[in-house]
Amino acid sequence: MSGDTAIATVCLSGTLEDKLAAAAAAGFGGVEIFENDLIASRRSPSEIRRLCADLGLRIDLYQPFRDFEAVPPDVLRANLRRARRKFDLMAELGADTVLVCSSVSPDAVDDDDLAASQLHELAEVAGERGIRVAYEALAWGRFVNTYEHAWRIVRRADHAALGVCLDSFHILSRRSDPRAIRTIPGEKIFFLQLADAPLLDMDVLHWSRHHRLFPGQGAFDLATFTGHVLAAGYRGPLSLEVFNDVFRQADPRPAAVDAMRSLVALRESVGTLEIPPAPRLGGHAFAELSVPGTVLEALGFVRAATHRSKPVQLWQQGSARVLVNETTRDGAVSALGLVSADPAGSARRAETLLAPERGPSSVAAPDGTEIVFCGNDEWLRDFVPSGAAPSGVGITGIDHIALTQPFDHFDEATLFYRSVLGLRPEEVSEFAAPFGLVRSRAVGDQDVRLTLDSALVRRGEWAPGVPSPQHVAFACEDALAVARALRGRGAPLLDIPGNYYDDLDARFDLPFAAELRENSVLYDRDSSGEFLHFCTELIGARVFFEVVQRIGGYRGYGVVNTPVYMTAHRERRLSLAR
Amino acid sequence: MSGDTAIATVCLSGTLEDKLAAAAAAGFGGVEIFENDLIASRRSPSEIRRLCADLGLRIDLYQPFRDFEAVPPDVLRANLRRARRKFDLMAELGADTVLVCSSVSPDAVDDDDLAASQLHELAEVAGERGIRVAYEALAWGRFVNTYEHAWRIVRRADHAALGVCLDSFHILSRRSDPRAIRTIPGEKIFFLQLADAPLLDMDVLHWSRHHRLFPGQGAFDLATFTGHVLAAGYRGPLSLEVFNDVFRQADPRPAAVDAMRSLVALRESVGTLEIPPAPRLGGHAFAELSVPGTVLEALGFVRAATHRSKPVQLWQQGSARVLVNETTRDGAVSALGLVSADPAGSARRAETLLAPERGPSSVAAPDGTEIVFCGNDEWLRDFVPSGAAPSGVGITGIDHIALTQPFDHFDEATLFYRSVLGLRPEEVSEFAAPFGLVRSRAVGDQDVRLTLDSALVRRGEWAPGVPSPQHVAFACEDALAVARALRGRGAPLLDIPGNYYDDLDARFDLPFAAELRENSVLYDRDSSGEFLHFCTELIGARVFFEVVQRIGGYRGYGVVNTPVYMTAHRERRLSLAR
Repeated sequence: MSGDTAIATVCLSGTLEDKLAAAAAAGFGGVEIFENDLIASRRSPSEIRRLCADLGLRIDLYQPFRDFEAVPPDVLRANLRRARRKFDLMAELGADTVLVCSSVSPDAVDDDDLAASQLHELAEVAGERGIRVAYEALAWGRFVNTYEHAWRIVRRADHAALGVCLDSFHILSRRSDPRAIRTIPGEKIFFLQLADAPLLDMDVLHWSRHHRLFPGQGAFDLATFTGHVLAAGYRGPLSLEVFNDVFRQADPRPAAVDAMRSLVALRESVGTLEIPPAPRLGGHAFAELSVPGTVLEALGFVRAATHRSKPVQLWQQGSARVLVNETTRDGAVSALGLVSADPAGSARRAETLLAPERGPSSVAAPDGTEIVFCGNDEWLRDFVPSGAAPSGVGITGIDHIALTQPFDHFDEATLFYRSVLGLRPEEVSEFAAPFGLVRSRAVGDQDVRLTLDSALVRRGEWAPGVPSPQHVAFACEDALAVARALRGRGAPLLDIPGNYYDDLDARFDLPFAAELRENSVLYDRDSSGEFLHFCTELIGARVFFEVVQRIGGYRGYGVVNTPVYMTAHRERRLSLAR
Repeated sequence: MSGDTAIATVCLSGTLEDKLAAAAAAGFGGVEIFENDLIASRRSPSEIRRLCADLGLRIDLYQPFRDFEAVPPDVLRANLRRARRKFDLMAELGADTVLVCSSVSPDAVDDDDLAASQLHELAEVAGERGIRVAYEALAWGRFVNTYEHAWRIVRRADHAALGVCLDSFHILSRRSDPRAIRTIPGEKIFFLQLADAPLLDMDVLHWSRHHRLFPGQGAFDLATFTGHVLAAGYRGPLSLEVFNDVFRQADPRPAAVDAMRSLVALRESVGTLEIPPAPRLGGHAFAELSVPGTVLEALGFVRAATHRSKPVQLWQQGSARVLVNETTRDGAVSALGLVSADPAGSARRAETLLAPERGPSSVAAPDGTEIVFCGNDEWLRDFVPSGAAPSGVGITGIDHIALTQPFDHFDEATLFYRSVLGLRPEEVSEFAAPFGLVRSRAVGDQDVRLTLDSALVRRGEWAPGVPSPQHVAFACEDALAVARALRGRGAPLLDIPGNYYDDLDARFDLPFAAELRENSVLYDRDSSGEFLHFCTELIGARVFFEVVQRIGGYRGYGVVNTPVYMTAHRERRLSLAR
């Protein structure tokens, strides 16, 4: 049943019943039932068995049994008594595999022979009841903390009802080489648990309990890892076991969909599932939002066309196109059009990856933004040209779109854009915004760039500007000239404080320093280039525009300057409120 | 000016102006201005100087200057140019001390003589302008990362305008012995930055940037540390520099008060400030909340008295007293009475520690709960006895009160109860509640116990039961008998699922297992005793009652069982909602 999927109930929020319903709705084939979820449930094990059957869910694993092996005889007796009770429960539940974690108990001793013989005894009790024992090395196990060690003990115990459980987090967090997995006979790998994680330099137990992620959201190479397990001959489900502070309190229904998306993408990358490939994206076709036309006019755009059937205006400058749709939600970016080499193929891939459909070739991103896949220009046929002569002050196209993410959707968004659109996530950076820390990550390829910013903690009532504004960044070839021209046209450009330029003067000796200051243009540089950019004031509460100039090979987004314009936006909002 | 206080603007949320206003309102004498806060401000340095003067704030430090020392000559030239600009700015600002952090730059080399001579050169430039350079070893400095090393370099540089800045986090996080601080001449300690922190096993930079706390909220021994610095002869301000994810997004006004409270308590413990000592607390006088009298009646309480002037009923059983005040907020615990050996003294101490006054001997805790200091029984004179005969089913008093804390107030609450009431904080534990992780910490002494639970992340809309219910836990000597009696009286006791007792049977071989199950009584044990407890259903949305029996020296609160009754409460609420 390779290719089958499962999810541990610990991944999701809610009661056991909430979790099972969410897992089934997202299309999982099975679940690992976490003991504490069952204990708190009012349904008996046989009622849970029936509920799962009704939902079309297998119970692939009951977990965990802790601190069993390598103990003195009296402790062993108590542990076997406990095990028999749990095996009775599993029979009622209809679960045939139990997870036994390597011991962290002070009762345990460092004796592989003793561990093997006691696990043999446990397997004997389990085997009589048709139950399999999957022994797993916790990364923080007292004596057994590598999969190779767990496998040596299982091999030594030599019992048909005893095998290993492999967990990608426990293995990859220790930087263990997963290649030796191929030396374990596939039929002795009783279970496979998958979790990704960011690379964090901290106590592995804390890392594991708080920061696991679904595959594709973190830094582990799970395709290679899973490839080794499959190459060994493992035929059980790919099962997710992800402890994450945020997912644990989020609505379990979208979280389960996010989880399933991670497995579809993983199965694609290990070659056990064929899904429509991501067609090449050729750039930003448009950004749709709701702003007054006068603002776009002041920015040098012309009203180039009107939609044939919807109250939508197309404004254009160079190849930058903005759709103004006054019916959209709260002024934020409601939709973005991406040029696809095969719009129908993009939509098919998105559907396979569980993106909610919004139209014939459009889907919803996790934060609700509509992603529209456009052929080169044929979407323009829905518009009646206004006949207005093209004009402009030097904006040439869309450089990137900044989609502020709700607190809970940051990791989900990364996986969405990576898997559905085939964009490459950059490193996560953090910066101190005036009202709290912000995580920032760009996803992109050569022609499409998005930035995903999110508050590090969910904001309370004090923090102003919640939710944070999004913005559309236009490209140009001479930011200073464009800024001058736009000021001349009365565009609502944001004034940057003089203190910023005093600091710039202290850090750099720029020939155009005075011009930057005069035009409120911000500056950044990296090892391969320079970046000039400036912003408008907030247009309404949720959106503003930026104009950027990339010089040389600069690849960033001027994040160092973000707190400066965030503060200026805040002040401007306050002065409007007065 | 020992005893003077200051706070770094990085501790607080908002614009520079928000931060300065909050610091001044909380009574700080000075501030450290963080460069990025100034850069983002629209006020010029001289305008900030005037604003601070108007607010009665000194500018004690401008910070930080990074990556200055031990570099090649061309880098030194650029760094000196940058320094001169910053010194000009400081002159405008009226700040006479600059923080220079030990270098993390790839340009730096491991050469103490070079570092010393370049710092000498910097001090020469600074000294001419009346500015002092305070050199600080970052815990993650590339070559200089201990205070002893920074001091060796400063000594070698031998310039009157060069001294050290000591930061408790950088020193204590590395487990450096702070005793050698006494060997530094006091006049060469130019500045002292204070931060507490929980003991976390993680990369020190991440720990520092996200998890610092105000003194008294974490695990560092700041009294001893500060004692060494004062013994060395330091006479500058005690200044807080706390980077904390939660404080950085919280309302800066209460955060600044919390910060000031931490310094008042610290100055008390190092003996530089005398404040009224915490009188001994003799137990819980009462809990005030709003519940129907019928519930208390079913729990065996009698209506013993009525307040002479307020719509408040006193219900009593044994020494457990509950005030029912139907005018209080949303059904939660609105006030708790604590027996104090000196109520007026308790109130004076609370006032000195900036607790908002609520009455002649009552103050508000950070979450708004009123804390009333009571003499032994004289507060009862405000009540007219009903003449009802004392009765009861075995409840003897109040064991503890569980005050669920809002997400942002957990650390503040710890400091409040520790400093204002003199209660001892226990270790923080974490448990997985059905809707997300919860941090839990008890504060108490022999006779007064409170538990403070708080969600680990601020909950979103999905999470039900936000805010989480509080509860009053009554003591008894025979939980099983009391449970039986209360069931007989029709008290709304919470039913616990059978799965819980199946697990209990698997873990323990208890002679009274069947009785626990029959009466929905929960069980826990630790190394010194046992704990039996049971709950009522939720009474309204925000509160329930618990009855507990402590056997032997059990010191906990049955936290292991909390997720079980939280789930049962959630189900009960759902079934009521249907």
